[in-house]
Amino acid sequence: MTDSALASWNDGPAKQAIIDFVAVATEPGPGFVPVVDRIATFDNDGTLWVEQPMPPQFDFVFRKWGEEIEADPSLASQQPYKAMIEKDAAFFQGVATQDPEVVATLEQGFVRSWAGTTPDEFEAQVREWCETVKQPTLDKLYVELVYRPMLELLEFLTENEFRVFVCSGGGRDFMRVFAEETWGIHKENVIGSAAGYKYSDGRLVRTHETLGGLVLGAGKPEHIFAQAGRLPAFAGGNGDVDIEMLEAAKFAMLVNHDDSEREFAYTAAAEKSLAKAKELGWTVVSMKNDWTTIF
Amino acid sequence: MTDSALASWNDGPAKQAIIDFVAVATEPGPGFVPVVDRIATFDNDGTLWVEQPMPPQFDFVFRKWGEEIEADPSLASQQPYKAMIEKDAAFFQGVATQDPEVVATLEQGFVRSWAGTTPDEFEAQVREWCETVKQPTLDKLYVELVYRPMLELLEFLTENEFRVFVCSGGGRDFMRVFAEETWGIHKENVIGSAAGYKYSDGRLVRTHETLGGLVLGAGKPEHIFAQAGRLPAFAGGNGDVDIEMLEAAKFAMLVNHDDSEREFAYTAAAEKSLAKAKELGWTVVSMKNDWTTIF
Repeated sequence: MTDSALASWNDGPAKQAIIDFVAVATEPGPGFVPVVDRIATFDNDGTLWVEQPMPPQFDFVFRKWGEEIEADPSLASQQPYKAMIEKDAAFFQGVATQDPEVVATLEQGFVRSWAGTTPDEFEAQVREWCETVKQPTLDKLYVELVYRPMLELLEFLTENEFRVFVCSGGGRDFMRVFAEETWGIHKENVIGSAAGYKYSDGRLVRTHETLGGLVLGAGKPEHIFAQAGRLPAFAGGNGDVDIEMLEAAKFAMLVNHDDSEREFAYTAAAEKSLAKAKELGWTVVSMKNDWTTIF
Repeated sequence: MTDSALASWNDGPAKQAIIDFVAVATEPGPGFVPVVDRIATFDNDGTLWVEQPMPPQFDFVFRKWGEEIEADPSLASQQPYKAMIEKDAAFFQGVATQDPEVVATLEQGFVRSWAGTTPDEFEAQVREWCETVKQPTLDKLYVELVYRPMLELLEFLTENEFRVFVCSGGGRDFMRVFAEETWGIHKENVIGSAAGYKYSDGRLVRTHETLGGLVLGAGKPEHIFAQAGRLPAFAGGNGDVDIEMLEAAKFAMLVNHDDSEREFAYTAAAEKSLAKAKELGWTVVSMKNDWTTIF
Protein backbone atom coordinates (compact mmCIF):
# COMPACT_ATOMS: atom_id res chain seq x y z
CA MET A 1 0.00 0.00 0.00
CA THR A 2 1.66 3.20 -1.18
CA ASP A 3 0.42 6.46 0.26
CA SER A 4 2.88 8.73 -1.52
CA ALA A 5 -0.12 10.13 -3.38
CA LEU A 6 -1.34 11.70 -0.12
CA ALA A 7 1.70 13.99 0.13
CA SER A 8 -0.26 16.98 1.48
CA TRP A 9 -1.77 14.97 4.33
CA ASN A 10 -0.16 14.95 7.75
CA ASP A 11 0.37 11.56 9.31
CA GLY A 12 -2.56 11.25 11.67
CA PRO A 13 -5.80 9.41 12.29
CA ALA A 14 -7.66 10.73 9.19
CA LYS A 15 -4.94 9.79 6.72
CA GLN A 16 -4.47 6.47 8.49
CA ALA A 17 -8.18 5.65 8.36
CA ILE A 18 -8.27 6.34 4.61
CA ILE A 19 -5.20 4.22 3.93
CA ASP A 20 -6.49 1.42 6.13
CA PHE A 21 -9.89 1.36 4.43
CA VAL A 22 -8.36 1.29 0.95
CA ALA A 23 -5.91 -1.43 1.98
CA VAL A 24 -8.71 -3.64 3.29
CA ALA A 25 -10.99 -2.84 0.31
CA THR A 26 -8.37 -3.83 -2.26
CA GLU A 27 -6.94 -6.96 -0.64
CA PRO A 28 -8.76 -10.31 -0.66
CA GLY A 29 -10.28 -11.03 2.72
CA PRO A 30 -13.01 -9.60 4.94
CA GLY A 31 -13.88 -6.07 3.84
CA PHE A 32 -12.70 -6.65 0.27
CA VAL A 33 -14.64 -4.49 -2.22
CA PRO A 34 -14.87 -6.01 -5.72
CA VAL A 35 -13.57 -3.67 -8.42
CA VAL A 36 -17.04 -3.22 -9.93
CA ASP A 37 -18.30 -1.88 -6.58
CA ARG A 38 -15.46 0.62 -6.07
CA ILE A 39 -17.49 3.79 -6.46
CA ALA A 40 -16.27 6.89 -4.62
CA THR A 41 -18.43 10.02 -4.44
CA PHE A 42 -17.54 13.50 -3.26
CA ASP A 43 -19.54 16.59 -2.59
CA ASN A 44 -18.06 19.70 -4.25
CA ASP A 45 -18.78 22.97 -2.36
CA GLY A 46 -16.76 22.93 0.86
CA THR A 47 -15.44 19.42 0.15
CA LEU A 48 -13.41 19.95 -3.03
CA TRP A 49 -13.27 23.74 -3.11
CA VAL A 50 -13.97 26.84 -1.04
CA GLU A 51 -17.65 27.58 -0.34
CA GLN A 52 -17.15 30.88 1.48
CA PRO A 53 -18.47 33.57 1.45
CA MET A 54 -20.93 31.61 -0.71
CA PRO A 55 -20.86 28.57 -3.00
CA PRO A 56 -19.05 29.75 -6.16
CA GLN A 57 -21.93 28.96 -8.48
CA PHE A 58 -24.00 31.63 -6.73
CA ASP A 59 -21.45 34.14 -7.95
CA PHE A 60 -22.03 32.90 -11.51
CA VAL A 61 -25.81 32.87 -11.11
CA PHE A 62 -26.03 36.28 -9.43
CA ARG A 63 -24.28 37.93 -12.38
CA LYS A 64 -26.96 36.52 -14.69
CA TRP A 65 -29.75 37.56 -12.35
CA GLY A 66 -28.25 41.04 -12.19
CA GLU A 67 -28.54 41.27 -15.98
CA GLU A 68 -32.11 40.05 -15.82
CA ILE A 69 -33.07 42.70 -13.27
CA GLU A 70 -31.44 45.36 -15.42
CA ALA A 71 -33.64 44.23 -18.32
CA ASP A 72 -36.75 43.91 -16.15
CA PRO A 73 -36.57 45.94 -12.89
CA SER A 74 -39.86 44.45 -11.66
CA LEU A 75 -37.97 41.22 -10.88
CA ALA A 76 -36.24 42.99 -7.99
CA SER A 77 -39.28 42.59 -5.78
CA GLN A 78 -39.62 38.85 -6.48
CA GLN A 79 -37.76 35.89 -5.01
CA PRO A 80 -35.07 34.76 -5.46
CA TYR A 81 -33.95 38.12 -6.94
CA LYS A 82 -35.04 39.99 -3.84
CA ALA A 83 -32.93 37.80 -1.55
CA MET A 84 -29.93 38.35 -3.79
CA ILE A 85 -30.29 42.15 -3.76
CA GLU A 86 -30.86 42.25 -0.01
CA LYS A 87 -28.00 39.80 0.63
CA ASP A 88 -30.53 37.82 2.64
CA ALA A 89 -28.23 35.25 4.26
CA ALA A 90 -31.14 33.57 6.07
CA PHE A 91 -32.83 32.87 2.74
CA PHE A 92 -29.75 31.30 1.18
CA GLN A 93 -29.07 29.32 4.35
CA GLY A 94 -32.33 27.59 3.40
CA VAL A 95 -30.39 25.59 0.81
CA ALA A 96 -28.13 24.08 3.44
CA THR A 97 -31.08 23.34 5.71
CA GLN A 98 -33.16 22.15 2.73
CA ASP A 99 -36.05 24.51 3.42
CA PRO A 100 -38.56 23.25 0.80
CA GLU A 101 -39.78 26.73 -0.17
CA VAL A 102 -36.30 28.17 -0.58
CA VAL A 103 -35.11 25.13 -2.51
CA ALA A 104 -38.12 25.26 -4.87
CA THR A 105 -37.74 29.01 -5.45
CA LEU A 106 -34.03 28.75 -6.19
CA GLU A 107 -34.50 25.66 -8.34
CA GLN A 108 -37.07 27.46 -10.47
CA GLY A 109 -34.85 30.53 -10.61
CA PHE A 110 -31.78 28.58 -11.77
CA VAL A 111 -33.67 26.68 -14.41
CA ARG A 112 -35.63 29.65 -15.74
CA SER A 113 -32.56 31.79 -16.31
CA TRP A 114 -30.98 29.37 -18.77
CA ALA A 115 -34.04 27.78 -20.36
CA GLY A 116 -33.61 27.75 -24.14
CA THR A 117 -29.80 27.65 -23.89
CA THR A 118 -27.76 25.07 -25.81
CA PRO A 119 -24.94 23.15 -24.07
CA ASP A 120 -22.31 25.08 -26.06
CA GLU A 121 -23.76 28.46 -25.11
CA PHE A 122 -23.91 27.51 -21.43
CA GLU A 123 -20.40 26.08 -21.48
CA ALA A 124 -19.02 29.28 -23.01
CA GLN A 125 -20.62 31.36 -20.22
CA VAL A 126 -19.23 29.15 -17.46
CA ARG A 127 -15.80 29.03 -19.08
CA GLU A 128 -15.61 32.79 -19.26
CA TRP A 129 -16.62 33.04 -15.60
CA CYS A 130 -13.99 30.44 -14.61
CA GLU A 131 -11.27 32.31 -16.42
CA THR A 132 -12.09 35.82 -15.24
CA VAL A 133 -13.98 35.96 -11.93
CA LYS A 134 -12.08 35.82 -8.65
CA GLN A 135 -13.24 34.74 -5.22
CA PRO A 136 -13.58 38.09 -3.38
CA THR A 137 -11.63 37.51 -0.15
CA LEU A 138 -8.82 35.23 -1.36
CA ASP A 139 -8.33 37.07 -4.66
CA LYS A 140 -7.94 33.94 -6.77
CA LEU A 141 -9.95 32.35 -9.55
CA TYR A 142 -12.42 29.87 -8.06
CA VAL A 143 -10.87 26.93 -9.93
CA GLU A 144 -7.59 27.75 -8.16
CA LEU A 145 -9.35 27.26 -4.82
CA VAL A 146 -9.63 23.50 -5.06
CA TYR A 147 -8.09 21.70 -2.08
CA ARG A 148 -4.84 20.02 -3.04
CA PRO A 149 -5.17 17.22 -0.45
CA MET A 150 -8.54 16.30 -1.95
CA LEU A 151 -7.11 16.15 -5.49
CA GLU A 152 -4.46 13.80 -4.10
CA LEU A 153 -7.19 11.69 -2.50
CA LEU A 154 -9.10 11.43 -5.80
CA GLU A 155 -5.89 10.28 -7.46
CA PHE A 156 -5.11 7.81 -4.67
CA LEU A 157 -8.57 6.26 -5.01
CA THR A 158 -8.29 6.14 -8.82
CA GLU A 159 -4.94 4.36 -8.53
CA ASN A 160 -6.71 1.79 -6.38
CA GLU A 161 -9.33 1.21 -9.08
CA PHE A 162 -12.05 3.31 -7.51
CA ARG A 163 -14.22 5.17 -10.02
CA VAL A 164 -14.55 8.68 -8.66
CA PHE A 165 -17.73 10.73 -9.02
CA VAL A 166 -18.48 14.22 -7.83
CA CYS A 167 -22.00 14.48 -6.43
CA SER A 168 -23.06 18.00 -5.60
CA GLY A 169 -26.21 20.03 -5.12
CA GLY A 170 -24.55 22.43 -7.55
CA GLY A 171 -25.27 22.40 -11.26
CA ARG A 172 -24.26 19.28 -13.14
CA ASP A 173 -23.56 21.16 -16.37
CA PHE A 174 -21.78 23.95 -14.49
CA MET A 175 -19.34 21.51 -12.88
CA ARG A 176 -18.86 19.51 -16.05
CA VAL A 177 -17.29 22.50 -17.77
CA PHE A 178 -14.21 22.37 -15.55
CA ALA A 179 -14.36 18.75 -14.28
CA GLU A 180 -11.85 17.30 -16.69
CA GLU A 181 -9.14 19.91 -16.40
CA THR A 182 -9.64 20.67 -12.69
CA TRP A 183 -10.41 17.29 -11.13
CA GLY A 184 -9.24 14.91 -13.86
CA ILE A 185 -12.76 13.46 -13.84
CA HIS A 186 -14.76 12.87 -17.00
CA LYS A 187 -18.03 14.74 -17.46
CA GLU A 188 -19.99 11.50 -17.10
CA ASN A 189 -18.64 11.18 -13.56
CA VAL A 190 -20.20 14.45 -12.46
CA ILE A 191 -23.58 14.17 -10.74
CA GLY A 192 -25.42 17.36 -9.91
CA SER A 193 -28.67 19.25 -10.08
CA ALA A 194 -29.69 19.59 -13.70
CA ALA A 195 -32.25 20.95 -16.08
CA GLY A 196 -33.98 18.75 -18.59
CA TYR A 197 -33.01 18.97 -22.26
CA LYS A 198 -35.09 18.56 -25.39
CA TYR A 199 -33.49 17.37 -28.61
CA SER A 200 -35.00 18.63 -31.84
CA ASP A 201 -33.72 19.83 -35.21
CA GLY A 202 -30.37 18.29 -34.40
CA ARG A 203 -29.69 20.22 -31.21
CA LEU A 204 -30.21 20.05 -27.47
CA VAL A 205 -31.94 22.92 -25.70
CA ARG A 206 -32.54 23.37 -21.97
CA THR A 207 -36.11 23.15 -20.75
CA HIS A 208 -37.86 24.79 -17.79
CA GLU A 209 -37.77 21.55 -15.79
CA THR A 210 -35.30 19.95 -13.46
CA LEU A 211 -34.38 16.30 -13.81
CA GLY A 212 -35.15 14.25 -10.71
CA GLY A 213 -34.96 17.09 -8.18
CA LEU A 214 -32.01 18.80 -6.51
CA VAL A 215 -29.02 16.71 -5.46
CA LEU A 216 -29.25 17.48 -1.74
CA GLY A 217 -29.87 15.20 1.23
CA ALA A 218 -31.75 12.07 0.12
CA GLY A 219 -31.37 13.37 -3.44
CA LYS A 220 -27.67 12.43 -3.28
CA PRO A 221 -28.03 8.64 -2.97
CA GLU A 222 -31.00 8.83 -5.36
CA HIS A 223 -28.97 10.55 -8.07
CA ILE A 224 -25.86 8.44 -7.38
CA PHE A 225 -27.87 5.27 -7.90
CA ALA A 226 -29.48 6.66 -11.06
CA GLN A 227 -26.13 7.64 -12.52
CA ALA A 228 -23.74 4.99 -11.21
CA GLY A 229 -26.08 2.04 -10.63
CA ARG A 230 -24.81 1.42 -7.11
CA LEU A 231 -24.24 3.28 -3.84
CA PRO A 232 -20.74 4.46 -2.96
CA ALA A 233 -18.07 2.42 -1.24
CA PHE A 234 -16.26 5.64 -0.27
CA ALA A 235 -17.93 9.02 0.20
CA GLY A 236 -16.72 12.45 1.27
CA GLY A 237 -18.72 15.51 2.24
CA ASN A 238 -18.68 18.46 4.58
CA GLY A 239 -22.23 19.38 5.51
CA ASP A 240 -25.69 18.38 6.59
CA VAL A 241 -26.86 17.97 2.98
CA ASP A 242 -24.28 15.15 2.64
CA ILE A 243 -25.58 13.01 5.52
CA GLU A 244 -27.61 10.56 3.43
CA MET A 245 -24.76 10.06 0.94
CA LEU A 246 -22.30 9.43 3.77
CA GLU A 247 -24.70 7.05 5.51
CA ALA A 248 -25.05 5.07 2.28
CA ALA A 249 -21.28 4.52 1.97
CA LYS A 250 -19.03 1.88 3.52
CA PHE A 251 -16.42 4.52 4.38
CA ALA A 252 -17.48 8.08 5.12
CA MET A 253 -15.29 11.13 5.64
CA LEU A 254 -16.32 14.60 6.64
CA VAL A 255 -14.18 17.66 5.96
CA ASN A 256 -14.26 19.98 8.98
CA HIS A 257 -13.60 23.65 8.27
CA ASP A 258 -11.53 24.56 11.33
CA ASP A 259 -8.73 26.56 9.77
CA SER A 260 -9.45 30.27 10.12
CA GLU A 261 -5.92 31.17 9.09
CA ARG A 262 -5.48 29.26 5.86
CA GLU A 263 -9.16 28.97 4.85
CA PHE A 264 -12.28 29.52 7.00
CA ALA A 265 -13.55 28.20 10.31
CA TYR A 266 -17.27 27.44 10.52
CA THR A 267 -19.68 24.68 11.43
CA ALA A 268 -22.88 26.36 10.19
CA ALA A 269 -24.98 23.81 8.26
CA ALA A 270 -22.57 21.08 9.33
CA GLU A 271 -23.68 20.63 12.94
CA LYS A 272 -25.85 17.60 12.26
CA SER A 273 -23.24 15.94 10.08
CA LEU A 274 -20.55 16.44 12.74
CA ALA A 275 -22.87 14.83 15.31
CA LYS A 276 -23.57 11.96 12.89
CA ALA A 277 -19.84 11.49 12.35
CA LYS A 278 -19.35 11.05 16.09
CA GLU A 279 -22.33 8.72 16.35
CA LEU A 280 -21.42 6.52 13.37
CA GLY A 281 -17.63 6.67 13.51
CA TRP A 282 -17.08 8.60 10.30
CA THR A 283 -13.58 9.93 9.67
CA VAL A 284 -13.49 13.67 10.37
CA VAL A 285 -10.78 15.52 8.48
CA SER A 286 -9.44 18.60 10.26
CA MET A 287 -8.28 21.03 7.62
CA LYS A 288 -6.07 22.62 10.24
CA ASN A 289 -4.40 19.48 11.52
CA ASP A 290 -4.66 16.93 8.73
CA TRP A 291 -3.60 19.01 5.75
CA THR A 292 -0.06 20.35 5.30
CA THR A 293 -1.30 22.67 2.61
CA ILE A 294 -4.77 23.73 1.54
CA PHE A 295 -4.37 24.79 -2.11
CA MET B 1 -4.14 0.35 -36.49
CA THR B 2 -4.77 -3.23 -35.45
CA ASP B 3 -8.12 -4.75 -36.35
CA SER B 4 -7.45 -8.22 -34.95
CA ALA B 5 -10.17 -7.43 -32.42
CA LEU B 6 -12.75 -7.58 -35.21
CA ALA B 7 -12.11 -11.27 -35.91
CA SER B 8 -15.77 -12.10 -36.59
CA TRP B 9 -16.12 -9.39 -39.24
CA ASN B 10 -15.61 -10.18 -42.91
CA ASP B 11 -13.32 -7.86 -44.80
CA GLY B 12 -15.72 -5.53 -46.53
CA PRO B 13 -17.00 -1.97 -46.64
CA ALA B 14 -18.58 -1.97 -43.14
CA LYS B 15 -15.48 -3.25 -41.34
CA GLN B 16 -13.31 -0.93 -43.42
CA ALA B 17 -15.47 2.11 -42.61
CA ILE B 18 -15.23 1.37 -38.87
CA ILE B 19 -11.46 0.89 -38.99
CA ASP B 20 -11.00 4.02 -41.10
CA PHE B 21 -13.09 6.14 -38.75
CA VAL B 22 -11.25 4.94 -35.67
CA ALA B 23 -7.89 5.46 -37.38
CA VAL B 24 -8.73 9.06 -38.26
CA ALA B 25 -10.31 9.73 -34.84
CA THR B 26 -7.24 8.55 -32.93
CA GLU B 27 -4.48 10.10 -35.02
CA PRO B 28 -3.61 13.80 -34.89
CA GLY B 29 -4.92 15.57 -37.95
CA PRO B 30 -8.28 16.47 -39.45
CA GLY B 31 -11.01 14.30 -37.94
CA PHE B 32 -9.06 13.69 -34.72
CA VAL B 33 -11.38 13.17 -31.75
CA PRO B 34 -9.83 14.19 -28.40
CA VAL B 35 -9.88 11.38 -25.85
CA VAL B 36 -12.40 13.20 -23.65
CA ASP B 37 -14.87 13.28 -26.56
CA ARG B 38 -14.55 9.58 -27.42
CA ILE B 39 -18.03 8.50 -26.41
CA ALA B 40 -19.55 5.51 -28.21
CA THR B 41 -23.20 4.60 -27.72
CA PHE B 42 -25.08 1.49 -28.78
CA ASP B 43 -28.70 0.53 -28.79
CA ASN B 44 -29.34 -2.90 -27.24
CA ASP B 45 -32.39 -4.73 -28.69
CA GLY B 46 -31.53 -5.78 -32.24
CA THR B 47 -28.14 -4.06 -32.07
CA LEU B 48 -26.37 -6.04 -29.34
CA TRP B 49 -28.73 -8.99 -29.01
CA VAL B 50 -31.70 -10.69 -30.65
CA GLU B 51 -34.99 -8.78 -30.53
CA GLN B 52 -37.18 -11.46 -32.16
CA PRO B 53 -39.86 -12.61 -31.64
CA MET B 54 -39.96 -9.70 -29.20
CA PRO B 55 -37.45 -7.62 -27.21
CA PRO B 56 -36.27 -9.95 -24.40
CA GLN B 57 -37.38 -7.63 -21.62
CA PHE B 58 -40.99 -8.14 -22.71
CA ASP B 59 -40.54 -11.80 -21.84
CA PHE B 60 -39.43 -10.76 -18.33
CA VAL B 61 -42.24 -8.23 -17.97
CA PHE B 62 -44.97 -10.51 -19.31
CA ARG B 63 -44.19 -13.12 -16.64
CA LYS B 64 -44.74 -10.49 -13.99
CA TRP B 65 -47.94 -9.24 -15.62
CA GLY B 66 -49.16 -12.84 -15.80
CA GLU B 67 -48.77 -13.11 -12.02
CA GLU B 68 -50.59 -9.82 -11.55
CA ILE B 69 -53.53 -10.99 -13.66
CA GLU B 70 -53.66 -14.22 -11.67
CA ALA B 71 -53.94 -12.17 -8.50
CA ASP B 72 -56.43 -9.71 -10.02
CA PRO B 73 -58.28 -11.09 -13.08
CA SER B 74 -59.96 -7.73 -13.74
CA LEU B 75 -56.61 -6.50 -15.11
CA ALA B 76 -57.09 -8.74 -18.15
CA SER B 77 -59.49 -6.28 -19.74
CA GLN B 78 -57.14 -3.30 -19.27
CA GLN B 79 -54.14 -2.18 -21.30
CA PRO B 80 -51.35 -3.13 -21.50
CA TYR B 81 -52.43 -6.50 -20.02
CA LYS B 82 -55.10 -6.98 -22.69
CA ALA B 83 -52.59 -6.54 -25.51
CA MET B 84 -50.30 -9.09 -23.89
CA ILE B 85 -53.05 -11.70 -23.56
CA GLU B 86 -54.27 -11.13 -27.09
CA LYS B 87 -50.71 -11.10 -28.47
CA ASP B 88 -51.67 -7.81 -30.08
CA ALA B 89 -48.63 -7.25 -32.30
CA ALA B 90 -50.01 -3.96 -33.62
CA PHE B 91 -50.12 -2.56 -30.08
CA PHE B 92 -46.52 -3.51 -29.30
CA GLN B 93 -45.36 -2.24 -32.68
CA GLY B 94 -46.43 1.12 -31.25
CA VAL B 95 -43.18 1.16 -29.26
CA ALA B 96 -41.08 0.99 -32.40
CA THR B 97 -43.20 3.65 -34.09
CA GLN B 98 -43.32 5.71 -30.85
CA ASP B 99 -47.11 5.89 -30.76
CA PRO B 100 -47.60 8.28 -27.80
CA GLU B 101 -50.56 6.39 -26.33
CA VAL B 102 -48.89 2.98 -26.51
CA VAL B 103 -45.64 4.36 -25.11
CA ALA B 104 -47.44 6.04 -22.20
CA THR B 105 -49.51 2.94 -21.42
CA LEU B 106 -46.49 0.64 -21.46
CA GLU B 107 -44.37 3.12 -19.49
CA GLN B 108 -47.00 3.28 -16.75
CA GLY B 109 -47.36 -0.51 -16.82
CA PHE B 110 -43.62 -1.14 -16.46
CA VAL B 111 -43.22 1.33 -13.64
CA ARG B 112 -46.33 0.29 -11.72
CA SER B 113 -45.39 -3.38 -11.63
CA TRP B 114 -42.14 -2.78 -9.73
CA ALA B 115 -43.01 0.30 -7.67
CA GLY B 116 -41.92 -0.25 -4.09
CA THR B 117 -39.13 -2.66 -5.09
CA THR B 118 -35.57 -2.19 -3.83
CA PRO B 119 -32.61 -2.48 -6.24
CA ASP B 120 -31.57 -5.80 -4.66
CA GLU B 121 -35.03 -7.30 -5.05
CA PHE B 122 -35.27 -6.22 -8.67
CA GLU B 123 -31.75 -7.45 -9.44
CA ALA B 124 -32.55 -10.89 -7.99
CA GLN B 125 -35.64 -11.19 -10.22
CA VAL B 126 -33.74 -10.21 -13.36
CA ARG B 127 -30.84 -12.50 -12.48
CA GLU B 128 -33.13 -15.48 -12.07
CA TRP B 129 -34.76 -14.72 -15.42
CA CYS B 130 -31.33 -14.41 -17.10
CA GLU B 131 -30.23 -17.74 -15.74
CA THR B 132 -33.37 -19.74 -16.47
CA VAL B 133 -35.50 -18.36 -19.31
CA LYS B 134 -34.68 -19.24 -22.90
CA GLN B 135 -35.51 -17.43 -26.11
CA PRO B 136 -38.33 -19.57 -27.59
CA THR B 137 -37.18 -20.17 -31.16
CA LEU B 138 -33.40 -20.41 -30.73
CA ASP B 139 -33.58 -22.36 -27.45
CA LYS B 140 -30.81 -20.41 -25.71
CA LEU B 141 -30.66 -18.11 -22.70
CA TYR B 142 -31.14 -14.53 -23.85
CA VAL B 143 -27.71 -13.48 -22.58
CA GLU B 144 -26.22 -16.11 -24.90
CA LEU B 145 -27.84 -14.34 -27.85
CA VAL B 146 -25.53 -11.35 -27.84
CA TYR B 147 -23.83 -10.78 -31.20
CA ARG B 148 -20.17 -11.74 -31.03
CA PRO B 149 -19.10 -9.21 -33.73
CA MET B 150 -20.64 -6.43 -31.64
CA LEU B 151 -18.78 -7.51 -28.49
CA GLU B 152 -15.59 -7.39 -30.55
CA LEU B 153 -16.52 -3.90 -31.74
CA LEU B 154 -17.08 -2.70 -28.15
CA GLU B 155 -13.65 -4.07 -27.26
CA PHE B 156 -12.02 -2.52 -30.33
CA LEU B 157 -13.44 0.89 -29.43
CA THR B 158 -12.41 0.52 -25.77
CA GLU B 159 -8.85 -0.33 -26.86
CA ASN B 160 -8.89 2.91 -28.81
CA GLU B 161 -9.87 4.88 -25.69
CA PHE B 162 -13.54 5.21 -26.52
CA ARG B 163 -15.84 5.04 -23.49
CA VAL B 164 -18.65 2.73 -24.48
CA PHE B 165 -22.24 3.25 -23.33
CA VAL B 166 -25.32 1.21 -24.06
CA CYS B 167 -28.34 3.44 -24.72
CA SER B 168 -31.58 1.56 -25.04
CA GLY B 169 -35.29 2.14 -24.72
CA GLY B 170 -35.18 -0.93 -22.49
CA GLY B 171 -34.94 -0.74 -18.73
CA ARG B 172 -31.78 0.81 -17.33
CA ASP B 173 -31.86 -1.31 -14.19
CA PHE B 174 -32.78 -4.43 -16.15
CA MET B 175 -29.72 -4.08 -18.40
CA ARG B 176 -27.42 -3.11 -15.55
CA VAL B 177 -27.90 -6.53 -13.97
CA PHE B 178 -26.00 -8.28 -16.78
CA ALA B 179 -24.01 -5.37 -18.26
CA GLU B 180 -20.75 -6.12 -16.52
CA GLU B 181 -20.54 -9.85 -17.16
CA THR B 182 -22.15 -9.79 -20.61
CA TRP B 183 -20.81 -6.64 -22.25
CA GLY B 184 -17.85 -5.83 -20.01
CA ILE B 185 -19.45 -2.42 -19.41
CA HIS B 186 -19.88 -0.91 -15.96
CA LYS B 187 -23.40 -0.21 -14.73
CA GLU B 188 -22.75 3.54 -14.93
CA ASN B 189 -22.27 3.17 -18.69
CA VAL B 190 -25.79 1.82 -19.19
CA ILE B 191 -28.41 4.39 -20.20
CA GLY B 192 -32.01 3.25 -20.40
CA SER B 193 -35.58 3.96 -19.45
CA ALA B 194 -35.82 4.09 -15.68
CA ALA B 195 -38.08 4.58 -12.74
CA GLY B 196 -37.39 7.17 -10.10
CA TYR B 197 -36.09 6.10 -6.69
CA LYS B 198 -36.70 7.52 -3.25
CA TYR B 199 -34.11 7.14 -0.51
CA SER B 200 -35.40 6.92 3.03
CA ASP B 201 -34.58 4.92 6.15
CA GLY B 202 -31.29 3.95 4.58
CA ARG B 203 -32.69 2.30 1.47
CA LEU B 204 -33.72 3.06 -2.08
CA VAL B 205 -37.21 2.16 -3.26
CA ARG B 206 -38.70 2.50 -6.74
CA THR B 207 -41.39 5.11 -7.23
CA HIS B 208 -44.34 5.25 -9.65
CA GLU B 209 -42.56 7.79 -11.84
CA THR B 210 -40.17 7.54 -14.75
CA LEU B 211 -37.04 9.66 -14.89
CA GLY B 212 -36.86 11.93 -17.91
CA GLY B 213 -39.11 9.86 -20.20
CA LEU B 214 -38.41 6.77 -22.29
CA VAL B 215 -35.08 6.46 -24.08
CA LEU B 216 -36.49 6.31 -27.61
CA GLY B 217 -36.05 8.65 -30.57
CA ALA B 218 -35.14 12.15 -29.35
CA GLY B 219 -35.00 10.63 -25.84
CA LYS B 220 -31.73 8.94 -26.80
CA PRO B 221 -29.56 12.05 -27.33
CA GLU B 222 -31.36 13.67 -24.38
CA HIS B 223 -30.48 10.83 -22.01
CA ILE B 224 -26.98 10.44 -23.47
CA PHE B 225 -26.25 14.09 -22.81
CA ALA B 226 -27.70 13.87 -19.29
CA GLN B 227 -25.60 10.82 -18.44
CA ALA B 228 -22.40 11.35 -20.41
CA GLY B 229 -22.26 15.13 -20.75
CA ARG B 230 -21.68 15.03 -24.49
CA LEU B 231 -23.12 13.52 -27.64
CA PRO B 232 -21.53 10.41 -29.12
CA ALA B 233 -18.59 10.31 -31.50
CA PHE B 234 -19.59 6.77 -32.54
CA ALA B 235 -23.12 5.36 -32.42
CA GLY B 236 -24.70 2.09 -33.45
CA GLY B 237 -28.37 1.17 -33.75
CA ASN B 238 -30.74 -0.89 -35.83
CA GLY B 239 -34.12 0.82 -35.95
CA ASP B 240 -36.18 3.92 -36.40
CA VAL B 241 -36.04 4.73 -32.66
CA ASP B 242 -32.24 5.13 -33.06
CA ILE B 243 -32.35 7.79 -35.77
CA GLU B 244 -31.81 10.82 -33.51
CA MET B 245 -28.90 9.13 -31.70
CA LEU B 246 -27.27 8.21 -34.99
CA GLU B 247 -27.82 11.72 -36.39
CA ALA B 248 -26.11 13.18 -33.33
CA ALA B 249 -22.95 11.08 -33.82
CA LYS B 250 -19.90 11.71 -35.97
CA PHE B 251 -19.91 8.09 -37.13
CA ALA B 252 -23.16 6.15 -37.39
CA MET B 253 -23.67 2.47 -38.09
CA LEU B 254 -26.92 0.61 -38.60
CA VAL B 255 -27.23 -3.15 -38.14
CA ASN B 256 -29.42 -4.60 -40.90
CA HIS B 257 -31.20 -7.84 -40.05
CA ASP B 258 -30.91 -9.63 -43.39
CA ASP B 259 -29.88 -13.10 -42.28
CA SER B 260 -32.92 -15.39 -42.19
CA GLU B 261 -30.73 -18.47 -41.82
CA ARG B 262 -28.51 -17.58 -38.87
CA GLU B 263 -30.77 -15.00 -37.20
CA PHE B 264 -33.83 -13.21 -38.62
CA ALA B 265 -34.58 -11.14 -41.71
CA TYR B 266 -36.81 -8.11 -41.22
CA THR B 267 -36.93 -4.39 -41.85
CA ALA B 268 -40.11 -3.61 -39.86
CA ALA B 269 -39.58 -0.48 -37.73
CA ALA B 270 -36.25 0.05 -39.49
CA GLU B 271 -37.47 1.40 -42.83
CA LYS B 272 -36.91 5.05 -41.95
CA SER B 273 -33.49 4.41 -40.47
CA LEU B 274 -32.40 2.48 -43.58
CA ALA B 275 -33.55 5.39 -45.73
CA LYS B 276 -31.68 7.84 -43.46
CA ALA B 277 -28.57 5.69 -43.72
CA LYS B 278 -28.65 6.00 -47.48
CA GLU B 279 -29.36 9.72 -47.32
CA LEU B 280 -26.66 10.54 -44.77
CA GLY B 281 -24.03 7.96 -45.67
CA TRP B 282 -24.23 5.90 -42.48
CA THR B 283 -22.47 2.56 -42.46
CA VAL B 284 -24.99 -0.26 -42.88
CA VAL B 285 -23.85 -3.58 -41.45
CA SER B 286 -25.27 -6.63 -43.21
CA MET B 287 -25.48 -9.43 -40.68
CA LYS B 288 -25.44 -11.88 -43.57
CA ASN B 289 -22.43 -10.52 -45.40
CA ASP B 290 -20.39 -8.64 -42.81
CA TRP B 291 -20.36 -11.13 -39.93
CA THR B 292 -18.59 -14.48 -40.12
CA THR B 293 -20.47 -15.62 -37.05
CA ILE B 294 -23.48 -14.20 -35.23
CA PHE B 295 -23.14 -15.53 -31.68
